[in-house]
Amino acid sequence: MHVDIDGGRLLERLEALAEIGPITGASGERGSARLALTDADRDGRDLVLGWMRDLGLDVSIDAIGNVIAVMGEGCGHRSGRAPVLCGSHIDTVATGGRFDGNLGVLAGLEVIESVLAAGLELRHPLGVGFFTDEEGARFAPDMLGSLVYAGGMTVEQAHDIRAADPGGPGPTVRDELERIGYLGSSPCPGSPPHAFVELHVEQGPVLEAEGLRIGAVTGVQGISWTRVTFTGQSNHAGTTPMSMRRDPAAALARIAVFVNDLADRFGAPQVATVGRIELHPNLVNVVPSRATFTVDLRNTDEVVLCRAEEELAAELARVAERHGVTVETECLARFEPVAFDERIVSRVEAAAAARGLSVRRMPSGAGHDAQMLARMCPSGMVFVPSIGGVSHNPAELTEDADLVAGCQVMADVMLDLADGGDW
Amino acid sequence: MHVDIDGGRLLERLEALAEIGPITGASGERGSARLALTDADRDGRDLVLGWMRDLGLDVSIDAIGNVIAVMGEGCGHRSGRAPVLCGSHIDTVATGGRFDGNLGVLAGLEVIESVLAAGLELRHPLGVGFFTDEEGARFAPDMLGSLVYAGGMTVEQAHDIRAADPGGPGPTVRDELERIGYLGSSPCPGSPPHAFVELHVEQGPVLEAEGLRIGAVTGVQGISWTRVTFTGQSNHAGTTPMSMRRDPAAALARIAVFVNDLADRFGAPQVATVGRIELHPNLVNVVPSRATFTVDLRNTDEVVLCRAEEELAAELARVAERHGVTVETECLARFEPVAFDERIVSRVEAAAAARGLSVRRMPSGAGHDAQMLARMCPSGMVFVPSIGGVSHNPAELTEDADLVAGCQVMADVMLDLADGGDW
Repeated sequence: MHVDIDGGRLLERLEALAEIGPITGASGERGSARLALTDADRDGRDLVLGWMRDLGLDVSIDAIGNVIAVMGEGCGHRSGRAPVLCGSHIDTVATGGRFDGNLGVLAGLEVIESVLAAGLELRHPLGVGFFTDEEGARFAPDMLGSLVYAGGMTVEQAHDIRAADPGGPGPTVRDELERIGYLGSSPCPGSPPHAFVELHVEQGPVLEAEGLRIGAVTGVQGISWTRVTFTGQSNHAGTTPMSMRRDPAAALARIAVFVNDLADRFGAPQVATVGRIELHPNLVNVVPSRATFTVDLRNTDEVVLCRAEEELAAELARVAERHGVTVETECLARFEPVAFDERIVSRVEAAAAARGLSVRRMPSGAGHDAQMLARMCPSGMVFVPSIGGVSHNPAELTEDADLVAGCQVMADVMLDLADGGDW
Repeated sequence: MHVDIDGGRLLERLEALAEIGPITGASGERGSARLALTDADRDGRDLVLGWMRDLGLDVSIDAIGNVIAVMGEGCGHRSGRAPVLCGSHIDTVATGGRFDGNLGVLAGLEVIESVLAAGLELRHPLGVGFFTDEEGARFAPDMLGSLVYAGGMTVEQAHDIRAADPGGPGPTVRDELERIGYLGSSPCPGSPPHAFVELHVEQGPVLEAEGLRIGAVTGVQGISWTRVTFTGQSNHAGTTPMSMRRDPAAALARIAVFVNDLADRFGAPQVATVGRIELHPNLVNVVPSRATFTVDLRNTDEVVLCRAEEELAAELARVAERHGVTVETECLARFEPVAFDERIVSRVEAAAAARGLSVRRMPSGAGHDAQMLARMCPSGMVFVPSIGGVSHNPAELTEDADLVAGCQVMADVMLDLADGGDW
């Protein structure tokens, strides 16, 4: 069972949604700023919710503001079975692009509209949803809505989270949901879909660099974020012999080199990044008293990720000893890798191939709602190329043809799943 | 010819001057803030100038605000010979201690007062001066007054320098000299003294660590400050494979390790410091686009310092190539090492030994007015211990006994020089 989606309609909806909370990039690129549960987010939600209702879908809003729209009586679907759900998010970071999140939601609408227009009879209904606060830019943690949907956090806990607004803690999630009219009545956790598929831009450079059109996402890398503080002794850079220094910046540099070399030594998919460094007092002629920095380690293999963490811990101790500094570490984030369901991954691969689209299996380096849904049902993702790997920036760009191709592959996969029996 | 100085009087003057622009350190320590040519600096100048006049010294103020007080008719000295001059500075950094600079000036007053009281007949008169803007905290470069005094910069150039005041460039040196009443009429360059001696706190940990009382300063290290900017590509720390990164933070870390190892490899007195680091955008999960940092290299041997600079330049190119980043460098400061006159260094050593004070020869890691005076006349310095090497901080501390001992050694050296013939 197949349907050809309408690429022009998808692109039009992407354009229309991008007009809400419009921002302009450094070179005039058009992006969007719709931080979670702000007025701009509400306006974006209202627009997409209207489109869902226009299609006659059964729309539910749950207690964390997730919006799920499923084919039901209004669309002539009466199976009562769990839906083949797709979706993503429509909130953005402050410097958001047009596609991150939005593509997965609007592609879902497009698939459903095409299927309804074709009058196909499905065993499982199709559905599309958008999850609250995926970006985590206003309320931590990120992927909050899908986390609560999948039962990973209670709705009460989530309601009490306060906005990290400029100038100090802002209102709570519950306050803001109520204010913008999205404090729904559907319960959390939500009911498990039959399957979940998320189309998303890669946010990395791999597909473009390899000249490929589609990524069949095998899972999401595990993430380990550590904040390290080395404390030594502030000293005059001219008058203090090397042998009498306790230099936390030298210690930091040795660790940054160590993790960079570790990633090379472990090989792909291990990545390691020191993205943030603060020295104190940060003056040219003063040996710093303190160096604070972050180490971001990621791997798809939990065992290997643990080994990287162990090696880092051992090296931190060795380097602290060598430079006579003390070391404190704080875990800022730790997520185990998530493996997507092989039955979804292989269907994505097969659907792309059947459409003549070049495809590779690949992990996701970034977090996505699909990794939360994977706790409830067989889940997977479809990636399309991000030009230059640019993300979280108005300059984020995916070619129109790739946006449409990704939507088509998702349509094929969803129909395949909707046509199948129970797992 | 000898005189015993009055330690109590020296300590009282240090206390009195410290009361002008008083600040308090983190643990309640008393420091001073008298940035060059501010009202507080004027008040400090007025106090010291009053003391100079009280002693009957001939006081001159030159066009850059340096104040030089020499024994003349008013003190019964009629040789007309060039003075044996001592001195330092009384401006401070914003977080200044009580001794940096002030000690050398007030010790000079004490030596002269003691010599006058003893009625000694000297071949050369004694003099004491304080030089404008030694710290460079408000007007760059540092050691400005002594630089102009020694003919290293024209007074016109110096007059046009603007204050680096908060909120943007402030008034010029000339405006501020005029405003505080210290735009003098004596010409610059000044007339060469017979010799110049500067007593100063070490601002480093060596004397205290070695249990020594006096440093006979052999010279001032050469200084090479380079600001390095590596520019790469900002990328998502999760989605960008190591092989596709252009990571300026990794490049920075390799350079910081390289210069730390270089100092160990070259051995003392080579020192190397990375004291300032700025990443952009400085986020835990983003490979930075830019890393800016400083490298401070110092050595007493110009040839070795040049070799260190050459090795750094070669390594910058290698590391930039390795990490696919571009490198820009800017020289922030470059001073050749200054060697003090052996005749002064040996006199300091002998004077300390004669007083039963433990002494070692040592270079200065910090810059001092004496290095400018060394362009005009035989010059040298006397160091006393800084507890913990703490400097530019209200917690800066030298034991009273060491302050007095340093002053006594300077008195002995000055009398020895004043009693001698022409060079």
